[in-house]
Order: sequence, then structure tokens, then C-alpha cells
Amino acid sequence: MISMDYNYDFIKACHGKPVSRTPVWLMRQAGRYLPQYRKIREKVAFLELCKTPELAAEVTLQPVDVLGVDAAILFSDILVPIESMGQRLHYSPAPVLEPPVRSAADVDALRVLQPEQDVPFVLDTIRLLRRELEGRVPLIGFGGAPFTLACYMVEGAGSRHFLALKRLMYQAPEVYARLMEKITDTSIVYLRAQAEAGAQALQIFDSWGGILSPADYQRHVLPYSRRLLTSLGDLGIPLIHFVKGAGAMLDLVSMAGGQVIGLDWSIGLNRARMILGENVAVQGNLDPAVLLGRQDVIEREVRRILDENAGRPGHIFNLGHGILPQVPPENAAFLVDCVHRLS
Amino acid sequence: MISMDYNYDFIKACHGKPVSRTPVWLMRQAGRYLPQYRKIREKVAFLELCKTPELAAEVTLQPVDVLGVDAAILFSDILVPIESMGQRLHYSPAPVLEPPVRSAADVDALRVLQPEQDVPFVLDTIRLLRRELEGRVPLIGFGGAPFTLACYMVEGAGSRHFLALKRLMYQAPEVYARLMEKITDTSIVYLRAQAEAGAQALQIFDSWGGILSPADYQRHVLPYSRRLLTSLGDLGIPLIHFVKGAGAMLDLVSMAGGQVIGLDWSIGLNRARMILGENVAVQGNLDPAVLLGRQDVIEREVRRILDENAGRPGHIFNLGHGILPQVPPENAAFLVDCVHRLS
Repeated sequence: MISMDYNYDFIKACHGKPVSRTPVWLMRQAGRYLPQYRKIREKVAFLELCKTPELAAEVTLQPVDVLGVDAAILFSDILVPIESMGQRLHYSPAPVLEPPVRSAADVDALRVLQPEQDVPFVLDTIRLLRRELEGRVPLIGFGGAPFTLACYMVEGAGSRHFLALKRLMYQAPEVYARLMEKITDTSIVYLRAQAEAGAQALQIFDSWGGILSPADYQRHVLPYSRRLLTSLGDLGIPLIHFVKGAGAMLDLVSMAGGQVIGLDWSIGLNRARMILGENVAVQGNLDPAVLLGRQDVIEREVRRILDENAGRPGHIFNLGHGILPQVPPENAAFLVDCVHRLS
Repeated sequence: MISMDYNYDFIKACHGKPVSRTPVWLMRQAGRYLPQYRKIREKVAFLELCKTPELAAEVTLQPVDVLGVDAAILFSDILVPIESMGQRLHYSPAPVLEPPVRSAADVDALRVLQPEQDVPFVLDTIRLLRRELEGRVPLIGFGGAPFTLACYMVEGAGSRHFLALKRLMYQAPEVYARLMEKITDTSIVYLRAQAEAGAQALQIFDSWGGILSPADYQRHVLPYSRRLLTSLGDLGIPLIHFVKGAGAMLDLVSMAGGQVIGLDWSIGLNRARMILGENVAVQGNLDPAVLLGRQDVIEREVRRILDENAGRPGHIFNLGHGILPQVPPENAAFLVDCVHRLS
């Protein structure tokens, strides 16, 4: 199966191999900017959508059909496995996790995920998608990095500065470390199960890793992300490691692992590739807000990023963060077309 | 007067000269974490406090007395001069500017600030403070960078992604440019007036410059910040240029100007100094959340940052962003003491 995957430009680019044209997909490409997605969401709540394989598969396929992207990504949420660890998860509409994890006892009460038993719907969605996608585009599975999951679990919700997490880290580093070990254990079995169900690449989202200084990243994040990525190495599929806001510490992100390093837009692609070296592929790095602009601006920015890459192998075009709900779908389709036309 | 200012470690450090010990002050050091400040705020609203020289001077002095910092910074708000440009400003409690600037006509309706007429209370506060501070510590004046002011003016409020600003930039770049020229004109006269009233250094806060890619920063921010900083060059006082979130494009920030470059905590101090070179001083770069932690962690982080600086001249210790309201005042005092004791 792995050798067959090499027919895909996306997989080739992950391995730094030559491609027919630069592959492109968009983070959160199955989402609210698409009327087809909103139509389904009128009938079903977000978490129910994640847990209903037929519907989750349907919205996963929408951007493949509508935009012509070069990869599909499982429709789910990074918080889904946390529910099975013992926190209650609901959306109102932002995610809330109850009760927040704050003490050693809270950490001890958490259990490690058993994927086939706890999240069969995720694995069923992947199996369904592989049948429907076969021969079209590869399927990416994903999970949150341990640190980003810890941010939500300790805070109990999204947050701007995640001060409860930092307070734990700076006041009770041993409790923080125990929590991170447990999340890492869960992330390993969760992502491994996705690959065994058929995911052809895995992306680790560290949406909040960039809120720390490089010194704290190295001390409090890198060891756990490295254990996760190392544990998944024998799967033989590309691992994409994306840390938002880490433009000034990409060397540390890369030390943690990943064949592909995701880039937000805080650093130029050329500079990022110089830091990362030849043996690492990159994915990014357009500011998602550019898709709110005029099409000549979108085309100029696509051209600039492709020029910065200068034809080096191992570039997957993507946004530097999830697509915004306000984006006109025709601009998203125009972006995909630009990447294909200009590369 | 300029030569007398050289007695201050803070001013010496700005110029890259040797100091007796590393000077330290804290962004937003006059603020809600101090019970003395909260007591005054019980009686007077935020904007009224900014506009009452005796009270503004009193809260400016509080951290000098309580913490022993090496500089005072004018108590005010970056949005104060905008009110005089024609937008209504109120706090509820977050700032709101009405009506938001969205069109060419909106830009044309704005006028350029006349400091003595429009913001006499700012200049009076500075004059009052200079008398009260003489011989103790120098006084820093400040203003928002044109881009950060534009973010608030276009959005009409604070925002996480400032999409209205980006939409304007990507859809009507000529209107955006005209707005930026007008704000730059205002910033020049505003900051010049502060210096003439007695400010002994000026800090330019570009709190939102880091939301742009380096390419967009270079196109849409750098020319205006450079014009502002260049226009203030003949004042002969240190100019501190702080762009939050710009760790991966410090070379561009430095190209825009400033004897001192402010650093958040997204980049290590040593790396930042290597990028900036010997002729630029730096100010930073502790994560403000560390002050929520144990004192042994605070001391460890102070030591790490001082070690990263490795005794190079031209380092002013500071937080990488404003002090958090949740910080225990004794931790802030402990930080100042650590910097003085360990340097």
C-alpha cells in the first residue's frame, strides 16, 4: 500500500520527491466557509457530526470535490480523544472540557484512550473514506500535540494566554509532566490506530506550542512531541508536525521530529527552509486572511511563496492556519487553481 | 540635559554603554496588579485617569516606589491621540472606537493631532513627572506604531485576528496606505511633543505588527514605522521599537529603526542579538506568565536571560509583554531584585 501511495503528488512531496505540480490542501478545508458544509450542520451538531461516520466522511469529501485539493483530511476535532480520557466535552459553541485538570489527583483520574472501544467512529470514518477516495487523493489523519491538548485540558476551554496551563507549569512542574506523559501515551495509541485504519499521513497540530519561549518549549514540550513522533516512526507514513507561532524556534520543532514541518506565515518560506535544511519538507505558508482579499492579491501571494520555495522539492502549499469562515468559496478554489497553474 | 541623562543605567543601556547593573522596568508596570493602582481606579475611570495629570503622575510613580524599577513610563494609552483624530473613544471595559474607519471618506474625515491643543493633559503629566522624578529615574514616553493604531481604528475595537484591517489591506491597499500616512503624521507630532515636554526616551509599541507575514510587514508596515522613527531621530533621545510577535523578522523590525529593539519571549535573547548585531540594544524578554510561578522558577528564568545576554552591553531587562493583572506584587518586586542582584 505504501508504494501505491507514491502515485500521489502530496505523498511524494512529503518525502521530498519530485512532483508534477505543487500539491495543495487547506487546513480546516471541510468547514463553515462551504455552503455544502453549513447545510449539513443545520441538521446536526458539531460533535455529533464528528461521531457519525457517513456524515463525517461526506464533509471530508466536500473540499476534494469543490476545490480540487490534493489531499483529504479526516473531519474530526483534536479534542475528541480527550472525552475518552475522562473529561466531559461539549460545544457552546466553543469547546468546554469539564472539570479542568489542575491537580495531581485530576491527572491520576484520567485514563489512556483505547481507540477501537472509545472512538470507533473515527476509525470507521477513515475506513469509509479510504474506500471512497481510492485512486483520487490520499487521506490525512491527525491529532493534537500533547502540549496543545494539555492547554485545553487544564484551561477547560479555549483561551488567549492559557494562564492556568502556565501557572501549573511554573508552580507544579511535576504535575504538569505527569499530565503530559499521560496525554502522550493516549496520542500514540490514537494516531497509531488512525494509521492502522488507513490514514496515509498523520498531522500533529501543536496550535499553542508557540505561546512558550524557546527555553520552555525545549523543557516542557519538545520531549513529549519527540516521544510521540518517534513512536509513530515505524508506521512508514509521512508525519507532519505543525507548531503555530514557532517561526523563531523552527530548529527545536524539527528536533522533535516530522518528515514535514508545517509553517504559519510568521516566517518567510525561504528562511524557514534554510533553517530546516534539505532533508525536511515544508507545508505552508499563506496568511489565511489573504483569501479575504482581491484575486490579484491572492495570485501575487501564491506566486511569492512559490518563488520563495524556488522549485525545491518537498513543498506542500497550505494556509498558515485554518481557513476562515468568512472566505468566499470561489477564492479558495481560485487559490488551489493558482497553485496548480503557477507551479 | 541629554548629558545629565547619562547618569542613568537605563539611558546608558539604551546607548549600549556600560552599566553598574542591568536596568529593568516592566511594560504596564503601573497597572491593575498593584493594589495602590486599583485603589485610585476605584474612584476614577481609566480614560479620566489618563486625562488627569496629578493622578496619572501618581500612578506612574507607584512602581518606581514599590518595585524599584530603573525607569518610569508615562501612564497613558496608545489610543488617546486617536480620539483627537476624530473617532469617539470609550472603554466598556475594552476600548471601542466609533465609527470604525473603513472607506476613503472615513480616512479623509480624520484630522492630524495638534498636541498642545488636543492632549495638553499628556504633556502636563510629563512636565509634572519630570519635576517629581528628577534625580531618581528617567521618564519614558510612548505611542502606538502606525500599524497598531490602524488595527484599532479600522476594527473599531480590539480583535484577535484584525480581519477588518486585513480585508482593507488586501482589498483596498490605496485606502489603507492613505490611512497609514495620516496616522504616521499624527504619531510624529505626538511623540515629538512628548519629548519636548520632557520625555527622556520614547517607546513605539507595535503590538500587532506580528500578525503579518514578513512580506506584508515589509510592504505595509515598515515604510511607515521607518518614517516615524527617522522623523524622531533629531530629538537625540533613545527610541525603543517593540513589535510583538516579530521574532522571525527582527531584521525587518531593525531596518525600520530604533536604538533599542523590544523582544517578546518567542525568540531567545542570544539568537535575537546575533540577528540584530552589535549596534542595537535590546529590551526584554521574559514571558509575563513566569511571574505567576514559584520564585525559584522566576529566579531561574532571570538567570537564563542574563546568561543568554552574556554580559553584552545594551540590555534592558523587561517582560516580553505587559505585566498580567493576576501577578502577585511581591513576585514583581522579586523579579526586579533578581535582575539587580544577578547582573
